[in-house]
Amino acid sequence: MIAEIISVGTELLLGKVVNTDTTIVAQALSGIGVDLLYAATVGDNPARLKKAVEDALERSDLLITTGGLGPTGDDLTKETVAAAAGRKLVFHQESYDRLVAQFPGREMSKNMEKQVWLPEGCDVLLNDNGTAPGCVFTTDKGKMVMMFPGPPSELVPMLNNYAIPYLLKGDEAIIVSHNIHIYGKGEAPVAMQIADLMESANPTVAPYAKEGECFVRVTAKASSEEEADEMCRPIIEEIKNRVGDFVYSVDVESLEELVVKELMEQGKTLATAESCTGGYLAKRITDISGSSSVFETGCVTYANATKEKLLGVKHETLEKYGAVSEQTAREMAEGIVKLSGADIGIGITGIAGPGGGSEEKPVGLIYLALSDGENTWVTARRPFGRRKNREWHRFVAASHALDMVRRYLEGLPVIGEDSL
Amino acid sequence: MIAEIISVGTELLLGKVVNTDTTIVAQALSGIGVDLLYAATVGDNPARLKKAVEDALERSDLLITTGGLGPTGDDLTKETVAAAAGRKLVFHQESYDRLVAQFPGREMSKNMEKQVWLPEGCDVLLNDNGTAPGCVFTTDKGKMVMMFPGPPSELVPMLNNYAIPYLLKGDEAIIVSHNIHIYGKGEAPVAMQIADLMESANPTVAPYAKEGECFVRVTAKASSEEEADEMCRPIIEEIKNRVGDFVYSVDVESLEELVVKELMEQGKTLATAESCTGGYLAKRITDISGSSSVFETGCVTYANATKEKLLGVKHETLEKYGAVSEQTAREMAEGIVKLSGADIGIGITGIAGPGGGSEEKPVGLIYLALSDGENTWVTARRPFGRRKNREWHRFVAASHALDMVRRYLEGLPVIGEDSL
Repeated sequence: MIAEIISVGTELLLGKVVNTDTTIVAQALSGIGVDLLYAATVGDNPARLKKAVEDALERSDLLITTGGLGPTGDDLTKETVAAAAGRKLVFHQESYDRLVAQFPGREMSKNMEKQVWLPEGCDVLLNDNGTAPGCVFTTDKGKMVMMFPGPPSELVPMLNNYAIPYLLKGDEAIIVSHNIHIYGKGEAPVAMQIADLMESANPTVAPYAKEGECFVRVTAKASSEEEADEMCRPIIEEIKNRVGDFVYSVDVESLEELVVKELMEQGKTLATAESCTGGYLAKRITDISGSSSVFETGCVTYANATKEKLLGVKHETLEKYGAVSEQTAREMAEGIVKLSGADIGIGITGIAGPGGGSEEKPVGLIYLALSDGENTWVTARRPFGRRKNREWHRFVAASHALDMVRRYLEGLPVIGEDSL
Repeated sequence: MIAEIISVGTELLLGKVVNTDTTIVAQALSGIGVDLLYAATVGDNPARLKKAVEDALERSDLLITTGGLGPTGDDLTKETVAAAAGRKLVFHQESYDRLVAQFPGREMSKNMEKQVWLPEGCDVLLNDNGTAPGCVFTTDKGKMVMMFPGPPSELVPMLNNYAIPYLLKGDEAIIVSHNIHIYGKGEAPVAMQIADLMESANPTVAPYAKEGECFVRVTAKASSEEEADEMCRPIIEEIKNRVGDFVYSVDVESLEELVVKELMEQGKTLATAESCTGGYLAKRITDISGSSSVFETGCVTYANATKEKLLGVKHETLEKYGAVSEQTAREMAEGIVKLSGADIGIGITGIAGPGGGSEEKPVGLIYLALSDGENTWVTARRPFGRRKNREWHRFVAASHALDMVRRYLEGLPVIGEDSL
């Protein structure tokens, strides 16, 4: 099956919004073995969209559109696609009722109704996160057309929960993927360690880079889920053996998810004291639903006075070594354990940039400490390689702290060999 | 001038890499008034690339390609584009010398040389950050073709330093855009308020949705920047009048950027006490470089005990009204002002979900308080309309808190009319 994506939106052609929709859909299609050969972006212009749709229906089996399903006048994807495919739009009562139910006790603005006019005979893809339903239909020439809303928060659940299962209906082969998540080792060295495994055709083995991390996806195709799992298992074990304790999970998607899970299992609590990350670590931990049972206290101590007052960092330490120092990180971690009574405390202090760096303490230098009340481990992340920005330094510092907690909870050396 | 981008790379169609190149080029073109009408992505496949290039040369005046200029066998953009445009590739001595100079004292791998075979008669676009030069030439039919390397670190300087100046030679029309940012009113009702303005052709007026916010872009084309600005001004004023104090900025991109700027200007400091947002508000404030001068202290008080201990929330308040209540939010805001000595304190407590909701206190119910030590304002955001997820509730609660600070600093009613 050959697929093609058309993303609709003038904002994409003005460079106002990065087209992540195409990446999201491309990943999902690649995961179920659909070949995506073209991706096009067109503005909110009926004539150009019509031409792109006609081209796509000519050369591809599956046309996917993203964007342009909303209530305003420049949302014209459904109208244009339906016309190009020879369908008329009809009022869809069930979707209208669902829409109205989303505005209990409030008046819905009149233009909302436009969203529930759908191609005749289509199947509706529910929008669990927004007002515009998606839809799927097959043209008279046997081409399948799927339309999705543009915002990723609406697209992702619609794709995963409704569209992919729809596409998989009737296919007998089952595809199973497992992701091996790795922190502390990059995509390139991992790829070299597993180069021979990457030549396998089924299961396939492919490494991917992720912000400050990487993961290896192992995908098998078989006649049942069990069989596909069975094919993946020895490969996963082999990769774990080769990559060692840099592997932090199989299929647990993020360090924060893993750490919250392990803290819950061990009945331990965590507290954070953050300077340069400014709450980013706490934010990532509390992204995880249920984290309240293991995370009770976080402090963002940007100012020195606050470091002293809340965490008990010694005035002399700040004077002598500076706020960005191994010693301050250590006292922050020890201080937050005392303040919160948590089992594990994290202290982070560093220079996120773009300002504030010096030759001795460059932008990107970040000290991280973990204390359990008895022992404290401190490490430093130094900037290296390509130039990175504030967001990157802050994100990766939080990741590194989470990895330290993971290592502590798993009884591994808290400071991995790649550090310092 | 009508432009078109073709991004080349199978990795883009597998969803391994997000296509930021298109966004980067689109922004640059929009900035100089070139109309980008199409963007296409094709894999490393000569036949499909050739077809895409032929289509582009037919309908557009300027074809820009990104990617596929490197040394390996699947880098085939130059070969394919040159063939489609009827040009042969010739060895470019000057680029070869520059390439060799990049490997002082080291042997250059043989396949590197492929990169300096360029379309006959082209102008070279220097690559200050990599080995593959870009190029520009005009076809016999008068169409301009520009080719860029794929990595953004190479593309960006080549585009800004060489390609854009090249394109600007001899052009008179200037395009200016201004964005009016709005919090507390959605895209649909804003669109209805400004429907008549949206019909104007120059300046153009178009509303866009953004996570929990929206903005209206006003774009004018004129012979000078001043003239274009002059054309935008009355429209911007009219939109501000109609939308009222929901407009938080013209051209300041985010609430956190605006709030940090205004705090700096007024010499005031802010402190935060967060429960359900778990540090998200602090994280967003400290995303802004320089925020350390106005933001000294943040507390994440997930547990009741921590709310009492750090912020001095009364035990009876928590017992009687619960952690998620107007009263607790109020005491959190007042407590963080006392603890930190900041001018303004924010307290946030609510139910981010997906668990923890009840009929009385549903997921999405969030109380927000702002205290200046003398007065305290409290409001509630109740879930309505579309079902939203944890990330959404947390993000929007932080936005709402930022908007309260903005309103306080600007002397507006701290609680906007859309609230509670």
